Amino acid sequence: MLDAPSRPSARELLSLSSLAPLVPMLYVAWTDGELTGDELRALGSAARAQPWLDLKSSSVLALWVDPLRPPPPRELALVREHIRATAEKLATSQQQNLAELGVQLAQALAGEAPLSIPPAELAKALASIEATLGVDGKEAVRSLVPRASRVPHAEPRSHTSSFDPTAMTAVLDRTYANVRRQVRGWLEDADFRYKEGLGTTAYRDQVFDWLKHLANDGLGQLAFPKGREGGGDLGAFIAAFETMAFFDLSLVIKAGVHFGLFGSSILFLGTKRHHQQYLPRVASLELPGCFAMSELGHGSNVRDCETVARYDAATSEFVIHTPSETARKEWIGNAARHARIATVFAQLEVDGERLGVHALLVPLRDEHGKVLPNIRIEDCGEKMGLNGVDNGRLWFDHVRVPRDNLLDRYGQVTEAGEYTSSITGDSKRFFTMLGALVAGRVSVACASLSATKSALTIAVRYGDLRRQFGPQGAPEVRLLDHQVHQLRLLPLVAKAYAVDFALEYLVDRYVHRTEDDAREIEALAAGLKAYASWNATATIQECREACGGQGYLTANRFASLKADTDVFTTFEGDNTVLMQLVAKGLLTGYRQRFEDDRVFAVLRLIVDQAATVFTDRNPIAGRRTDTDHLRDSDFQLRALRFREEALLASVSKRIRKRLTAGVEAFEAFNQVQAHLLALAHASVERIVLEQFLRGVADVKDEALKPVLGRMADLFGLSCLESASGWFLEHGWLTAPKAQAIRKERVKLCEELRPDAVGLVDAFGIPDTCLAAPIGLGRLAPGGERFDDTAADSARAGPADSRAS
Amino acid sequence: MLDAPSRPSARELLSLSSLAPLVPMLYVAWTDGELTGDELRALGSAARAQPWLDLKSSSVLALWVDPLRPPPPRELALVREHIRATAEKLATSQQQNLAELGVQLAQALAGEAPLSIPPAELAKALASIEATLGVDGKEAVRSLVPRASRVPHAEPRSHTSSFDPTAMTAVLDRTYANVRRQVRGWLEDADFRYKEGLGTTAYRDQVFDWLKHLANDGLGQLAFPKGREGGGDLGAFIAAFETMAFFDLSLVIKAGVHFGLFGSSILFLGTKRHHQQYLPRVASLELPGCFAMSELGHGSNVRDCETVARYDAATSEFVIHTPSETARKEWIGNAARHARIATVFAQLEVDGERLGVHALLVPLRDEHGKVLPNIRIEDCGEKMGLNGVDNGRLWFDHVRVPRDNLLDRYGQVTEAGEYTSSITGDSKRFFTMLGALVAGRVSVACASLSATKSALTIAVRYGDLRRQFGPQGAPEVRLLDHQVHQLRLLPLVAKAYAVDFALEYLVDRYVHRTEDDAREIEALAAGLKAYASWNATATIQECREACGGQGYLTANRFASLKADTDVFTTFEGDNTVLMQLVAKGLLTGYRQRFEDDRVFAVLRLIVDQAATVFTDRNPIAGRRTDTDHLRDSDFQLRALRFREEALLASVSKRIRKRLTAGVEAFEAFNQVQAHLLALAHASVERIVLEQFLRGVADVKDEALKPVLGRMADLFGLSCLESASGWFLEHGWLTAPKAQAIRKERVKLCEELRPDAVGLVDAFGIPDTCLAAPIGLGRLAPGGERFDDTAADSARAGPADSRAS
Repeated sequence: MLDAPSRPSARELLSLSSLAPLVPMLYVAWTDGELTGDELRALGSAARAQPWLDLKSSSVLALWVDPLRPPPPRELALVREHIRATAEKLATSQQQNLAELGVQLAQALAGEAPLSIPPAELAKALASIEATLGVDGKEAVRSLVPRASRVPHAEPRSHTSSFDPTAMTAVLDRTYANVRRQVRGWLEDADFRYKEGLGTTAYRDQVFDWLKHLANDGLGQLAFPKGREGGGDLGAFIAAFETMAFFDLSLVIKAGVHFGLFGSSILFLGTKRHHQQYLPRVASLELPGCFAMSELGHGSNVRDCETVARYDAATSEFVIHTPSETARKEWIGNAARHARIATVFAQLEVDGERLGVHALLVPLRDEHGKVLPNIRIEDCGEKMGLNGVDNGRLWFDHVRVPRDNLLDRYGQVTEAGEYTSSITGDSKRFFTMLGALVAGRVSVACASLSATKSALTIAVRYGDLRRQFGPQGAPEVRLLDHQVHQLRLLPLVAKAYAVDFALEYLVDRYVHRTEDDAREIEALAAGLKAYASWNATATIQECREACGGQGYLTANRFASLKADTDVFTTFEGDNTVLMQLVAKGLLTGYRQRFEDDRVFAVLRLIVDQAATVFTDRNPIAGRRTDTDHLRDSDFQLRALRFREEALLASVSKRIRKRLTAGVEAFEAFNQVQAHLLALAHASVERIVLEQFLRGVADVKDEALKPVLGRMADLFGLSCLESASGWFLEHGWLTAPKAQAIRKERVKLCEELRPDAVGLVDAFGIPDTCLAAPIGLGRLAPGGERFDDTAADSARAGPADSRAS
Repeated sequence: MLDAPSRPSARELLSLSSLAPLVPMLYVAWTDGELTGDELRALGSAARAQPWLDLKSSSVLALWVDPLRPPPPRELALVREHIRATAEKLATSQQQNLAELGVQLAQALAGEAPLSIPPAELAKALASIEATLGVDGKEAVRSLVPRASRVPHAEPRSHTSSFDPTAMTAVLDRTYANVRRQVRGWLEDADFRYKEGLGTTAYRDQVFDWLKHLANDGLGQLAFPKGREGGGDLGAFIAAFETMAFFDLSLVIKAGVHFGLFGSSILFLGTKRHHQQYLPRVASLELPGCFAMSELGHGSNVRDCETVARYDAATSEFVIHTPSETARKEWIGNAARHARIATVFAQLEVDGERLGVHALLVPLRDEHGKVLPNIRIEDCGEKMGLNGVDNGRLWFDHVRVPRDNLLDRYGQVTEAGEYTSSITGDSKRFFTMLGALVAGRVSVACASLSATKSALTIAVRYGDLRRQFGPQGAPEVRLLDHQVHQLRLLPLVAKAYAVDFALEYLVDRYVHRTEDDAREIEALAAGLKAYASWNATATIQECREACGGQGYLTANRFASLKADTDVFTTFEGDNTVLMQLVAKGLLTGYRQRFEDDRVFAVLRLIVDQAATVFTDRNPIAGRRTDTDHLRDSDFQLRALRFREEALLASVSKRIRKRLTAGVEAFEAFNQVQAHLLALAHASVERIVLEQFLRGVADVKDEALKPVLGRMADLFGLSCLESASGWFLEHGWLTAPKAQAIRKERVKLCEELRPDAVGLVDAFGIPDTCLAAPIGLGRLAPGGERFDDTAADSARAGPADSRAS
């Protein structure tokens, strides 16, 4: 057979504006699946007979209707996405058939410029072509441009909120407001739209393209500005990361792996020559990298990793080797497809001596993407979510890298093979190096919060509109007017705000950290990462259930929010392990408090506790159940402080008792593991409440104070209620007070109900990122949220319509 | 161009045994994506030069390498699945290249029969063909037959359990042991394997094929036996359903929709003529049906549905009509693709009079699958999970059906247009008809439990083998030897057993229901459906997290378990709504208790409560914290009974107070909604513990009693601990006792630890259903669970190896 010219790509097809009106029909012709070759050819002839087609368009069209050249699904998906994206911009979505859709697409693409032929004439021509297609055009349009937004009860919002959501957004955007606005702007580019139905490979490549787009926009420069090889503004980068997490989470994690983990490892563990040589290419994404720390047998326990980096003085090289199957690098993001280099953590061996875990740069692929010799890479395969990230496994078979590739800020090897380090202890050096992970944990905490906000925005907006059940003979009631629905969602909104202020504090502490408080900040990051990611899992689940069947539709986003965030509780440190780290940090501090100044500390502790007891256990204050008392943030905070302090003293005593009795240290800690987790939780929650209150106190805008005050009360009382067993057990709450707290929460939810939608609007999530038809914020021209007319608007009670 | 012969289907290709050795190369040739037409042709020539190919094979092969006939993805997926399924059966998985894989496939297919050419010769020929392919054969085999089972720390199980898991399986299989064994046998057929990467349409068709397979095996006969049109053994059908839920949940739900909802609607709402006309074709799946109850605007609130069925006496027909967009039937399983008929719930209108919701049979598609006139069907689109079920939307435009199509057991319309019913009240009739839903709720509860068991089996087996952290200088410790890991998983295992016995009770009550206890059983089903499905969501999540990164891989099943079960809390009745139903049932009963025999009832209540107070609040018993007392099931059960009774009295008082004050009924209930849910939860949990204890007491096998006793204690004390706030508040627990309960739980977990794996083995889930490489039960010939050698077996402590 002769070789014919190849079919032009979808991109080429779509670039030809004169073909625009025909694109929907072309798509349907190939996907309808029942057209014979003859029918395809007939369609081609009819189309090519149109006088408005130039020669090039005509020949492209001919190749696109060639029955022997079926376009692959990936190409057709591109065509479909193009049609959908363009259709999204149309003022009306009342296309009745493919011809009308074609005309509208042509008009949308032409913009202000007039069409080359009058619309009416074009419509007529297209209608005649559509007839040759022999499909039900109405049906075809419906499946091609699904009006997923067909949601019932389209009606105005229930309330105008008591505050200006835009002013609240400014509060939440705070220090890095500019960066956040900038990223929102980037994400509103038409390129950043969820693509349905991409296969794994195509999805990964899409994510890489998006990342490249962001790198070009300037994302990398935020973290690693040109000419400042010492590093840029990590706080700004984290704010950007948090904002990006309103969109596709694979993109966020891929960005985190490349810029955050890989880039930061060079920044923090490398020295100036590494910075100069690598960071500019990291910032531009010319050199995609990965972070090879975890091993199959050593996930949480990195210190016992097995990969070896032996120094060969004869050649001044390090030899990287994977000695066993459990030593293979596992779950390495960016490794399966795109990374050309890796930061590899390995046991350093110099002259037969083991010097602990160090990091080295190891090239993985050449510039054409071909894997280098002696390196084996395997795909981790399909995951529950985040399938846009290419996680891989790595094996090294005596791979040699130059001596310079050791990231040697904390440990150096001379050419002759002498090891030097400013930190003498292996263990201390190891933990200092692990500090490079802190930015990752901070970022995951922030991304968790963004996903939480997305879910809450969708669920609260839906709950405000959807009606179900009601008094006999009266309109049904909005879901958010059901008591249980308020209790389901509003405390979670309050908690999201609390976490927001706590993360502001974390980022601020992190950005301004010194050597002295580095360990404290590591513990803070560990604790808040665990708290925020567990909260994401729980909140997204509750929101999904609160949206019922609608929440189960992929289009409404909970599917991806759930699947993508599910691993947040595991990666960058398993939450259970991190919380033990927090507890151990507290125990160390506790011991030091006594060792440093034993007498004073004991005295202070006694005084503190006495004050608590005096205020809260005395017959008057302890039994107060009035609103003023319960909504006194001091009262709430003292409760959480008391719990933390009591648990700390108790765990410390338990461990000392065991150690004194000769129980081995690991076993002694294992026996109180549940207590350690309770202590860590108490401590983190105290910090969250403290920072929420601090943040609210700092707000300048007086108009926002009442609603923020209620939110803080709701969060504070929710903390108390969820641990009421503990507080009752320790005599800190009495039964009537526990009951009063429950009542007060119900009251707070009622009071916050009218502000519910405003509170989620203030998260400032772009509609294009949110994407869920049941959760969009923009109102259609008619003042309604959705494109359906309010079928039962007669039912709606009096309500205010408000543009957001 | 001339029409050439069409490419033979994948099925044809795979049926030719002489092509078997070439199949892997053919697959790789098409999926590698980089072969040019010439390379394809070269491959074809090389292959066809082989002397062992007969003419037919040769021509099929030629068409499969024709560059102009790329096989569609669906066909390639079939080929891949065939290769994988065959490769699964191979004793070794050490194929190094495509040629070796080809030889092994040929041998596997040939079975005992000798190959037509000697294997060595075949291998040589294949190797030369492979060379023409120019791909990395090792890499290709790795991605074609992923050895997902490469899991670390392959080592023997930690303990031999204290009991015989097989005996425990017999206890759990109980009444319907035969049915369960039969279904396990069906599922072990090679046809029932998870298929990766199917598109939605292919997946739906696969599920339909599976269902057809099961119908042929006899599944439908269980529910609707031939010749017994009154119905068969629903208990047996539910047991089959529960067992099927160890496998693909889309299949289970599809079976539930067709046999359960659709079939049962005919059985329960229809009369003899419907049974005779339809049930045999329902049982055989000749007539796939769906159950059209929910409407877009009326999910939980079915009574307000809008679809109308107006009787036209002139033609003796009913006219089914969708009057508005909110009235469209929504989420109808089986509707988007396969159903040919629907049971439609609609407001019956006879002679201008509205008679409430009734059910009618409405044909949807003709025997060729073409949608009938005046019916519109739309696909609901992609969902979070269960994408093998084709949920659709239905609109009826004055569709006419014969008078006979009214399912008229509870309400009849004469030809002249007169309505008759044995139940006078519309409301009572409506709730009687809703009774048809009960089987669905029972089934969802059972399926929830099965999914819970799958997750627990995987997580417990993995936790028993995976090691992480440990004492310095000693082997790392198995996850399940960490205290927190025991506390995470073992109470959930105990709860799964508890739910198992509670569901046995529910099914038994359901099967033997009478008109008198129908309402009580509906409430029981509603409550246990909510309890079991919420438990599934929570347990699967905990298990996923307990498996860390491994839990996030699709291959390890949590992804589908989570996504597929997520809607269980929503469909067949939203859990929150169901729990309110439970509470309202209790309130009705409470009122009746007083009305029926006020004096006696009050007296009994006082006596009951006095007894409780006497036993548990007196200074001696109330403060006992010893093991004997805490592990006294009477003590645990009294606690739960006290809570239920106290909440019931309190809620009743609150509602009465409001109603007396003139608050409108809906609003009065709304104000105590949170209390209603607490009451429902307390009641359901009391029933679960009661039935667990009853079940354990009934077990004949004395050897199982100790472990079951510990499990019941763990469940009972977990109930108390999770509500310790409430019990402390109500003076039912003292602080030292609450603390003692916590300690006792830790101790119980320690005691149950060695039995953990045995307890999940007893669930009896076939390995082919479980499928998760980290959770399989079979041991490889070497006594190890996985196919990797135990890289660190040196680390393993003394342990017993045990076949399961």
